[in-house]
Amino acid sequence: MAHQTLAQRFSATLVEQITNGTYRVGERLPSLRECMRLHGYSKNTVINAYELLASQGLIEARHGQGFFVKTGTAKASEPEEPLPYARAMDTIWLMRQQFVREPGHSPLGEGFPPVEWLMDMRLDRFTRQIMRSGVTTLFRYGNRLGNAGLRQHLAQKLAGYAISVTPRQIVTTHGANHALDLIIRRFVAPGDCVLVEDPGYYPLFGKLQLQGARMLAVPRLADGPDLEVLKQWLKTEQPKLFFIQSVGHNPTGSDISPSKAHQLVQIAEEHQLILVDDDALADFKPTSAIKVSALDQLKRTLYVGSFSKSVSAALRVGFIAGNKEVIDELGDLKMLLHTSSSEFCERTVDVILEEGHFLRHLVRLQERLKLATAQGLHMLDEIGAEVFSRPEQSLYLWARFPQVDDARELTRRLLPKGFMIAPGHIFSPVQTQVNPWTRLNVAYLNDPQLKALFTP
Amino acid sequence: MAHQTLAQRFSATLVEQITNGTYRVGERLPSLRECMRLHGYSKNTVINAYELLASQGLIEARHGQGFFVKTGTAKASEPEEPLPYARAMDTIWLMRQQFVREPGHSPLGEGFPPVEWLMDMRLDRFTRQIMRSGVTTLFRYGNRLGNAGLRQHLAQKLAGYAISVTPRQIVTTHGANHALDLIIRRFVAPGDCVLVEDPGYYPLFGKLQLQGARMLAVPRLADGPDLEVLKQWLKTEQPKLFFIQSVGHNPTGSDISPSKAHQLVQIAEEHQLILVDDDALADFKPTSAIKVSALDQLKRTLYVGSFSKSVSAALRVGFIAGNKEVIDELGDLKMLLHTSSSEFCERTVDVILEEGHFLRHLVRLQERLKLATAQGLHMLDEIGAEVFSRPEQSLYLWARFPQVDDARELTRRLLPKGFMIAPGHIFSPVQTQVNPWTRLNVAYLNDPQLKALFTP
Repeated sequence: MAHQTLAQRFSATLVEQITNGTYRVGERLPSLRECMRLHGYSKNTVINAYELLASQGLIEARHGQGFFVKTGTAKASEPEEPLPYARAMDTIWLMRQQFVREPGHSPLGEGFPPVEWLMDMRLDRFTRQIMRSGVTTLFRYGNRLGNAGLRQHLAQKLAGYAISVTPRQIVTTHGANHALDLIIRRFVAPGDCVLVEDPGYYPLFGKLQLQGARMLAVPRLADGPDLEVLKQWLKTEQPKLFFIQSVGHNPTGSDISPSKAHQLVQIAEEHQLILVDDDALADFKPTSAIKVSALDQLKRTLYVGSFSKSVSAALRVGFIAGNKEVIDELGDLKMLLHTSSSEFCERTVDVILEEGHFLRHLVRLQERLKLATAQGLHMLDEIGAEVFSRPEQSLYLWARFPQVDDARELTRRLLPKGFMIAPGHIFSPVQTQVNPWTRLNVAYLNDPQLKALFTP
Repeated sequence: MAHQTLAQRFSATLVEQITNGTYRVGERLPSLRECMRLHGYSKNTVINAYELLASQGLIEARHGQGFFVKTGTAKASEPEEPLPYARAMDTIWLMRQQFVREPGHSPLGEGFPPVEWLMDMRLDRFTRQIMRSGVTTLFRYGNRLGNAGLRQHLAQKLAGYAISVTPRQIVTTHGANHALDLIIRRFVAPGDCVLVEDPGYYPLFGKLQLQGARMLAVPRLADGPDLEVLKQWLKTEQPKLFFIQSVGHNPTGSDISPSKAHQLVQIAEEHQLILVDDDALADFKPTSAIKVSALDQLKRTLYVGSFSKSVSAALRVGFIAGNKEVIDELGDLKMLLHTSSSEFCERTVDVILEEGHFLRHLVRLQERLKLATAQGLHMLDEIGAEVFSRPEQSLYLWARFPQVDDARELTRRLLPKGFMIAPGHIFSPVQTQVNPWTRLNVAYLNDPQLKALFTP
């Protein structure tokens, strides 16, 4: 790499961006002027890089319009290898899909919002403020519970949900998945049984399987978990934990109703059940949305939060809030297993929360989401799809396309047509069952090409 | 809570936020518009809530500017609570000590280099370069194996140790401890036996205990592990893994001899033993230092690396290198458990390695280390301490102070005098044994006050 010219380096970067789908076929590349400003390259460097790519047939100049991506099949330095067919469409398949963008494909089944929805937050603008809060600690391990300033902001954020905590009741994590992992390792021993929602958050199931837990499925209805089934399980088994999502449930996008939340907290109290309330999509919903963790005030609830989908997944910042004793134990466990979380990333989030852009950002994010949800629901109605729940704003919709009994078949049919959807069976703790549902990301739902596939 | 009006509920939330110090005196509260949009409250609800608080004298309206906090009892940031004495000086104690600095105390037992040794690397200077390699991916999850550019640099770094790998044989982690955790979870089931060095890296022991592994101790001698004891274990047990540190062994600071490294690789081949070569202190030693992973070319070795102690522990960037199949599995495991590592932090390290400051930084770091090691050894000689091994440069020295039979006693005696040392028993998988040794950080060893304590 030391022998490369700047132009070669820049062109290699562009190749990677074209390959990983950042720039799609037919898309205009940044202008010379933009490249010069953004990357600090000279005009010649940019021209040389673009000419190199044009000579390889990857991009083309259109007179007076700029450079455009011609083909998306550029050779990557390192393409992700295809998974063996046997493993296709299981948990690992869907998780890998989140990371690899097929050029030109619609990531309809993806769990992540479009980057354009996040980019009003300029991550590069905060360095000075990050440094201001102390340079030396940016070289050391962080506090085992996480950056103290950030935890103060998190307490403030939770107060906005009517959850009253001190910063001492919060431990930061490398995202919500790390939080779930720590909770599982603290509370679940091999052979233990654990309650989960069906459908539910599929990476959670993978973690529980890995720990050797037995999953007891509680059907998720449009207004929350099926409490009758829950009561049946509690008669015959002794589960210690119930993993739920009060708000913005993944995959159905549904929210728990106030009365169900109330009943659930009562049942949890009676049976000494710990509720793990995964609220990773909190920022996509109004703060007034009912959460079991707010009703219970974290007596029997562990609250899991994340900034991956509302700020940046590249920062890996999430957190757990709960009673002080449990948080203390989880803090020690985090330290023993992974030393500490990233002081650097946590201060970045701290600055973002402090500077106040965050609220404005959320307003924009939710406006976009509301529009996309309405348009998505409209489109699904038009093609005659059944929708599980009809939230006002939700990153996900859970839908059943007409004449579809097995969403695996539909997934196989749509993939070659450029649409990646997330088939329903993955979201069940019993992955072998035939499932007609699919999880759809509303950001990519309002697509005429998709509609055409379902219009006779 | 059900009997409260929405305005009362919202105002109670705000009171909580003001009293717990999350909104401070003089700070502006969110505007009506922001509250309406974010919390889903009506304009009247927000106005009623704010007027309620104003009537209580907690906030005030400033014309045309909004509402501001008038009084509050902002709390100071929380101090870490002392550990109960019963837990003093165990693994958790020593790990917590790494995070909490007593003002004026000498962190002689600390595992970390002084921040001054790292600060020539300005972490805030790289933002522009980090952005240059693609803004959009800074919002998304990273590749499951880690940033491709960084892995290319890591392959180059390993080539400098005569270890030949492709980037595809590397998976990045949140530091070396995350790497060890992933390896343990892939290869160690509860009840399995595992070989460890005694003394050895104590956070490793904690992780193995947590997984329910049985640790088989192999004494660490000044030239590497005691191969006779190793062979005895291999006669009676079937361990799958042996965790070692070829270079800069923690806590003894010793390096493996070439002949011992060679024999160890042969034994590992004969017994299908996987060697996990934790090389977290590689940057503190010459690249020419012998490593079992270089002799074996990662056939039976997993190499663990880290930038925590040579760049910044706040970035949490480490990695595992090994054969392609194992790395692939570890990549999937990492994804399943913790989704991805931080693209943001990994690009920062990538830029640091790319821009070439890194080598200069290491030269300075090792010069300082060499001087501190020589001075530390001299001081230990002067007070008549026994030194386990006498490396030319090592962050740690393993020493036995005169007339000390139990380093726990010494630790208790020195703490009130302002010296935190790391007592030897913590570094043994059998923590109950009386141990006269201590691990000393050479950066803090050349201290007249310390010397005076041991001079009659």
